[in-house]
Amino acid sequence: MTKLKSELYQPLSSDVVPRYAGIATFMRLPYVALEQATDLDIGIVGVPWDGGTTNRAGARHGPRQVREMSALMRRYHPVLDISPYAIANCADLGDAPVNPLEILGTLDGLTAHYRQIVGRGITPLSVGGDHLVTLPILRALAECHGPLGMIQFDAHSDLWDVYFGGSEYAHGTPFRRAIEEGILDPNRLVQIGLRGGLYSAEDNAWAVEQGVHQFPIEVVDERGCDAVLADALRLVGAGPTYVTFDIDCLDPAHAPGTGTPEVGGFTTLHAQRMLRRLRGVNLVGADVVEVSPPFDPGGATALAGATMLFELICLLAEHRAATTG
Amino acid sequence: MTKLKSELYQPLSSDVVPRYAGIATFMRLPYVALEQATDLDIGIVGVPWDGGTTNRAGARHGPRQVREMSALMRRYHPVLDISPYAIANCADLGDAPVNPLEILGTLDGLTAHYRQIVGRGITPLSVGGDHLVTLPILRALAECHGPLGMIQFDAHSDLWDVYFGGSEYAHGTPFRRAIEEGILDPNRLVQIGLRGGLYSAEDNAWAVEQGVHQFPIEVVDERGCDAVLADALRLVGAGPTYVTFDIDCLDPAHAPGTGTPEVGGFTTLHAQRMLRRLRGVNLVGADVVEVSPPFDPGGATALAGATMLFELICLLAEHRAATTG
Amino acid sequence: MTKLKSELYQPLSSDVVPRYAGIATFMRLPYVALEQATDLDIGIVGVPWDGGTTNRAGARHGPRQVREMSALMRRYHPVLDISPYAIANCADLGDAPVNPLEILGTLDGLTAHYRQIVGRGITPLSVGGDHLVTLPILRALAECHGPLGMIQFDAHSDLWDVYFGGSEYAHGTPFRRAIEEGILDPNRLVQIGLRGGLYSAEDNAWAVEQGVHQFPIEVVDERGCDAVLADALRLVGAGPTYVTFDIDCLDPAHAPGTGTPEVGGFTTLHAQRMLRRLRGVNLVGADVVEVSPPFDPGGATALAGATMLFELICLLAEHRAATTG
Amino acid sequence: MTKLKSELYQPLSSDVVPRYAGIATFMRLPYVALEQATDLDIGIVGVPWDGGTTNRAGARHGPRQVREMSALMRRYHPVLDISPYAIANCADLGDAPVNPLEILGTLDGLTAHYRQIVGRGITPLSVGGDHLVTLPILRALAECHGPLGMIQFDAHSDLWDVYFGGSEYAHGTPFRRAIEEGILDPNRLVQIGLRGGLYSAEDNAWAVEQGVHQFPIEVVDERGCDAVLADALRLVGAGPTYVTFDIDCLDPAHAPGTGTPEVGGFTTLHAQRMLRRLRGVNLVGADVVEVSPPFDPGGATALAGATMLFELICLLAEHRAATTG
Amino acid sequence: MTKLKSELYQPLSSDVVPRYAGIATFMRLPYVALEQATDLDIGIVGVPWDGGTTNRAGARHGPRQVREMSALMRRYHPVLDISPYAIANCADLGDAPVNPLEILGTLDGLTAHYRQIVGRGITPLSVGGDHLVTLPILRALAECHGPLGMIQFDAHSDLWDVYFGGSEYAHGTPFRRAIEEGILDPNRLVQIGLRGGLYSAEDNAWAVEQGVHQFPIEVVDERGCDAVLADALRLVGAGPTYVTFDIDCLDPAHAPGTGTPEVGGFTTLHAQRMLRRLRGVNLVGADVVEVSPPFDPGGATALAGATMLFELICLLAEHRAATTG
Amino acid sequence: MTKLKSELYQPLSSDVVPRYAGIATFMRLPYVALEQATDLDIGIVGVPWDGGTTNRAGARHGPRQVREMSALMRRYHPVLDISPYAIANCADLGDAPVNPLEILGTLDGLTAHYRQIVGRGITPLSVGGDHLVTLPILRALAECHGPLGMIQFDAHSDLWDVYFGGSEYAHGTPFRRAIEEGILDPNRLVQIGLRGGLYSAEDNAWAVEQGVHQFPIEVVDERGCDAVLADALRLVGAGPTYVTFDIDCLDPAHAPGTGTPEVGGFTTLHAQRMLRRLRGVNLVGADVVEVSPPFDPGGATALAGATMLFELICLLAEHRAATTG
Repeated sequence: MTKLKSELYQPLSSDVVPRYAGIATFMRLPYVALEQATDLDIGIVGVPWDGGTTNRAGARHGPRQVREMSALMRRYHPVLDISPYAIANCADLGDAPVNPLEILGTLDGLTAHYRQIVGRGITPLSVGGDHLVTLPILRALAECHGPLGMIQFDAHSDLWDVYFGGSEYAHGTPFRRAIEEGILDPNRLVQIGLRGGLYSAEDNAWAVEQGVHQFPIEVVDERGCDAVLADALRLVGAGPTYVTFDIDCLDPAHAPGTGTPEVGGFTTLHAQRMLRRLRGVNLVGADVVEVSPPFDPGGATALAGATMLFELICLLAEHRAATTG
Repeated sequence: MTKLKSELYQPLSSDVVPRYAGIATFMRLPYVALEQATDLDIGIVGVPWDGGTTNRAGARHGPRQVREMSALMRRYHPVLDISPYAIANCADLGDAPVNPLEILGTLDGLTAHYRQIVGRGITPLSVGGDHLVTLPILRALAECHGPLGMIQFDAHSDLWDVYFGGSEYAHGTPFRRAIEEGILDPNRLVQIGLRGGLYSAEDNAWAVEQGVHQFPIEVVDERGCDAVLADALRLVGAGPTYVTFDIDCLDPAHAPGTGTPEVGGFTTLHAQRMLRRLRGVNLVGADVVEVSPPFDPGGATALAGATMLFELICLLAEHRAATTG
Repeated sequence: MTKLKSELYQPLSSDVVPRYAGIATFMRLPYVALEQATDLDIGIVGVPWDGGTTNRAGARHGPRQVREMSALMRRYHPVLDISPYAIANCADLGDAPVNPLEILGTLDGLTAHYRQIVGRGITPLSVGGDHLVTLPILRALAECHGPLGMIQFDAHSDLWDVYFGGSEYAHGTPFRRAIEEGILDPNRLVQIGLRGGLYSAEDNAWAVEQGVHQFPIEVVDERGCDAVLADALRLVGAGPTYVTFDIDCLDPAHAPGTGTPEVGGFTTLHAQRMLRRLRGVNLVGADVVEVSPPFDPGGATALAGATMLFELICLLAEHRAATTG
Repeated sequence: MTKLKSELYQPLSSDVVPRYAGIATFMRLPYVALEQATDLDIGIVGVPWDGGTTNRAGARHGPRQVREMSALMRRYHPVLDISPYAIANCADLGDAPVNPLEILGTLDGLTAHYRQIVGRGITPLSVGGDHLVTLPILRALAECHGPLGMIQFDAHSDLWDVYFGGSEYAHGTPFRRAIEEGILDPNRLVQIGLRGGLYSAEDNAWAVEQGVHQFPIEVVDERGCDAVLADALRLVGAGPTYVTFDIDCLDPAHAPGTGTPEVGGFTTLHAQRMLRRLRGVNLVGADVVEVSPPFDPGGATALAGATMLFELICLLAEHRAATTG
Repeated sequence: MTKLKSELYQPLSSDVVPRYAGIATFMRLPYVALEQATDLDIGIVGVPWDGGTTNRAGARHGPRQVREMSALMRRYHPVLDISPYAIANCADLGDAPVNPLEILGTLDGLTAHYRQIVGRGITPLSVGGDHLVTLPILRALAECHGPLGMIQFDAHSDLWDVYFGGSEYAHGTPFRRAIEEGILDPNRLVQIGLRGGLYSAEDNAWAVEQGVHQFPIEVVDERGCDAVLADALRLVGAGPTYVTFDIDCLDPAHAPGTGTPEVGGFTTLHAQRMLRRLRGVNLVGADVVEVSPPFDPGGATALAGATMLFELICLLAEHRAATTG
Repeated sequence: MTKLKSELYQPLSSDVVPRYAGIATFMRLPYVALEQATDLDIGIVGVPWDGGTTNRAGARHGPRQVREMSALMRRYHPVLDISPYAIANCADLGDAPVNPLEILGTLDGLTAHYRQIVGRGITPLSVGGDHLVTLPILRALAECHGPLGMIQFDAHSDLWDVYFGGSEYAHGTPFRRAIEEGILDPNRLVQIGLRGGLYSAEDNAWAVEQGVHQFPIEVVDERGCDAVLADALRLVGAGPTYVTFDIDCLDPAHAPGTGTPEVGGFTTLHAQRMLRRLRGVNLVGADVVEVSPPFDPGGATALAGATMLFELICLLAEHRAATTG
């Protein structure tokens, strides 16, 4: 029988409590208030906020539905041969503080909250929320680790400059801001799955100038997931790296519940295959964003999100066990 | 400003945490494990079990969705002028133990669980689950209070004898069993809102013999809610009384998400009006059952259930405050 | 125990076969091919056709979904104290012949089909389909009974003349045609529940000239269901009478799945109350039309339709039993 | 045949173009750009913005879905005997300018936009958006008419002060701000349909101090729609009056697609009955707000909204015709 | 023109009766009561039971919805060049007897029912129901054929031992029981499409010991469907073989309506490709299980199930014609 | 910055008007009445008609929902490097005239309407409606260009002869009629994605005789999209060619909202890849048909349709710019 790092931080057993029962937490893990989290390795954090959404809002409801559907997750990953909860102390840290009526205030509040998480030595695994929530997470992590590399699974680059003639903080701009702020290293930023129409032929010019590495879906389709991920690993190298998984990288057939769906995306099988290639990366945090329940009340999108969350927690747990063991 | 009985047992403030945020508990109240519940007045308990359902299962998912929609509830009832959490210590006790593959075992486990709740002096307010879950609750309460009176809002009498030629425990039989077991006093059983076709003209003969008081919807429509409730209050009298609210007493327009919908039912406004007349009844417990999320993913039924739960918690809190002060 | 007229024509027992099981027929009655129906009193007929629908098609799928939801119906009507299957031989006659690509051809085929049903002495109880399907039914019945009286529960009078500048057969014209053809007596036509905007102030002029009796919803709301039905009974008198129940007479809250919803309609409780007043009318047939499943996949509308069908079969059975013994 | 004020401003004829065809505008009226609107009496304006929503966003999509469902509306109101498009020039003015990322900026832009509408002598009939959008409309109207009276159909008073400890502009605060700004006369503010829990017993104290007239649903249920509306007419008197119809005044059975549903509300029939009593009021504008399509993709809520819009356009047209001839 | 084996056992012609019309039977085939089935080759049987479901129930409704959607199936398989109804007598045998309140009793009843089917020389093609229903089918078939080989398309091995500390009969245990009972030969059991997390690293140890052949999705993705099926054919060999198709082998994008969805599954195109490779296998029966309509009211999952059923009936018909011809 | 051919014919800017705002037109382009369209290159036309549908109607609502979802499209195609609106004048021409109660009359009216469009030198890009609407479009185009070649993406050949024993015009017959009428050259007709059962083994005999080129899905799966498209390009050659995209060529996972779904279809990524290979074809028009909103209220199917429309408008614009410069 597997020896557990801690009996305290285990998911509710489905052999005792049926999966549909009990209060919904991420992965059925115990809820722990941040101020009481003293020996955690990985904290799963909800960020219920979509204040940066320019079209279809709803990602604010994402954490609730991902918690609900994550009850279907089990404890052991047979392909990676990892039992995350046996090797790392994991818990649901509840939701980060947000104000649906404030953009700048919320971004500052989130930065402060993640600063505390990072300060307690916890690796944050977050569930959005729209993609703008990744910006304050990167800020807090960069304070600790310096400029980060990032592997971004996404239909959109989120490198646009401004919306509506002057709004700098929107779900399409976080990584422009992060590069400008010096917290994200464009040469270690790898974007995978980009597709869909653009505003103009110049949209990607800035990214190219900065040295961002973009793998549109057509390239992945042509070269295959494995080849692209091999490149990605080489490009992010050994430095501290964040993984952000925008659920809209998936095809709308697999993830209809999102604000800006783009047809022609990844299957969940592709996504799993790619995430599993991230083994060995120097991971400092990760997130799954843009699950928008009002556009998928049945929860298929949230199930996809929860499954990617399980892939990520396996990677983070293995990395934590290897480095801090 | 209202003086609170306890700061500990207050709902999460929507002025700090938006209603869609945070881990979903009943009424946004704190979750308290039963073994640690030492000073509770009212415990809200989920009973995620539909093992007695003969047609459309799904009520096992009821507690989760009622928790989710109960986030819309506020703290003060302006019509009754009651602030329940200011006068009674209330908490979410989590879900009672169940096994979806066992009928008799689950009924016994539930009886034992409610025996503990009652033993700790907690008034149980439960969320089903199908209507069979009320049986073990009545068993535990009757051990303490003796045979109970009951006001039942329901489209069906649930007094049938057996199903499929021999199954005695089903969602249509709990109150037959309860009367037979001597834990429910048929002369203090009042059923309101009965309607729909029957199996035969003899269906209600047993109820009549036992002295059960039945108010079909046509009677309520004719005489009005107030007159019927005045009768009901007189019939249950001053003895210990339970209130069971089967969500299918509501019209399917108001509560489509239930296993055995019957058209021609109450509006939610009717239901609220009737529940509010129960002020002053000697209440020892209450429940809301038969919310079945798979038949209403949008949650309108669960919202109706959560609102009735708030009506009930106001009544229970006032009664507790009056009797145990 | 009730003595049954025939053991053959009983619904599948829910004490043996669960309600969700078995092949879906109307009321779980046996399916009987028309050519083999020798001793039937009442035949339930599906008319899966919406070729007269000018806006939102879908009622062609009505019979299937009403069959499905009618599995929830039981055998005994406690308010009317009628056990229809004990006093009349009832069966599902399957669906009438239709061609979704032909209007006139289908109307002729339906007339011929109903001529056979009537010729075999069977009282037809039909499930549409859009409201145009009532026209051929009336034709066949009038051949046998002469000009008919009719009680029509409907949001719309369906007395318009032509659509799109020349189309005479549409779901808004059947009763204009029927009056013109002399098969419907306008002085014995009572329309209840009319509402919604009109094309112009002149829309109802023709109806008034013909002597049609119209009770808009506002009148019913003002005078009450009972008073209006008392008038209706007086107006149709003792002659042969048809009852047509357009599901859109119900409020969209109760019947969202229909092609031309109009807010401000009846509750199902109102509808049941009114139908029950039709006891004693000289009924030669009845129908429920305009249930459109694509606009209500969950089936609440079909459940309302199935329940009204049960109300109607009770009335037809009692009338048959009284007149043909 | 009715003589039309203008051939230009007529809805698309359903006798030529089926109701499901053509580009969706409000009531199938022609779209007219504001700068070209020289002879309009009534302009229907979409305000696709929900920046003040503290819980479930989505009302930003309201105008689109109300346009879609308004295709079911016809031209003549038989109960009021009004043909609005025959007596007033009506058009769809498109959507007002909004920025989903800006609260204050959007409010200012809306005020400016409505100032232009009012300046051109057009009576605005608006479709939200959340309830905060009514504030800038009132600002523009008050510049022209002075402090306004208002009849508000709503489950909530929307008179709260601040959210999240300091946010003054939210969908629960517009009328507090309007009274403070002196553009809404509290003594001529009538609120009908209030219900649901409150934050505390003090919630309504400010309203009472200001002299606001509140008719909770229980009062309407007790006294009847007609008596309450008679009071309302007396209370608003002859001064310039605005009508705001928050779709959540309706019961969730009738309007599930809204951000803050409260059970126990009005039926659509009640709502129509009350709106029709507003004949003769000195109306300077009106709106329907809080239709939130993501929570009702089928559009029943938008159909209710479109129907109330038709009731309102009849009232506004009659008033315009009477006063400006 | 194809010569038909029997005119009696042909599907309703869509050239006479539109596909949406008529009473819904599997493939629009005639319904035949088992006791009257004297010359049938293949009987399609519904098993409306989900008593073994530990999380999301609903598969009890599967047969109804698969019947409904199977109306879209046609008569000729162009890729296999098989006209099943021309070469084998096929009919809908209705639903097998079940009791939703009994596990052991139902399993026994099902075994007895299938014993009769097999005894009449009919090859059973079944539609579940949850996966536990396959156990009694195997029991009946093994009585006739001896221990069976099986090709199982499934996300889960269903080889777990017990649930909730002691429940031996659940939808995750049927094949453990079948191997223990000696009716399923583990060396001729091939499982294809396994994926998702496990309870622990030891989950598959028993399967490995028994010699079960497992092809997880990653292996199929790597090696291709054709190579894996070639292995499967070799492994099951020439002995009597059953095919079980758990709809959750498909990706939730293709089959959302199931109780235990796992992302990263097969497309329907993959599934068809694999099933078509089973030509020539010595097939004694087959099933499609775990279609759960409450989680997909629109019926896409049931359409996938119905299509797989058509693939299977082609295989079974060809095999019958070849062996009993 | 890209130089635009005309400032007039540009989509509404999402930097000024959010994507969910404004009146819904195709691609947010200006609406232009046909009689005023003097300098248009490409006109997008809705054909809201499903009079040829033999099973599940609903495609009449297609244009509205495609307009709605097309708001998500942007202006520049990065893979093809085409900015269609910069090089061709494009507009929404509104909906073509239809009568839901008339088949032959509507086909004639559509032919006349498209004759005008073609006569004004506009390349028509149409949105159905069911597949029968392509017939009158081909008639009008062939009058101008002579017999056409066609590339058809479709699950069905639509080459059947008659339905219901005599109906010649149905959504499964348009191309049989077109070949018979001499307006479609069977040797230049390429059909891609065919699949599903057939009525009999003879179904495709006529197509083979005529020399139609058919690529069933299994062939595409085996040989790959690129090889098949290379063949297609060679087969249609340099003559005038039409492209018709039946949304049911996509798998139901990607396009559930259609009348005759067939599992085992293309992903949207496949479809995009194939459409992009059509560069350089001599295109005279194109369409997207069979989007049926009642079977997908959420709009995923319409989003797929809108995206294919964008692929097609890029191809048409490039071709127009190259040939008429």
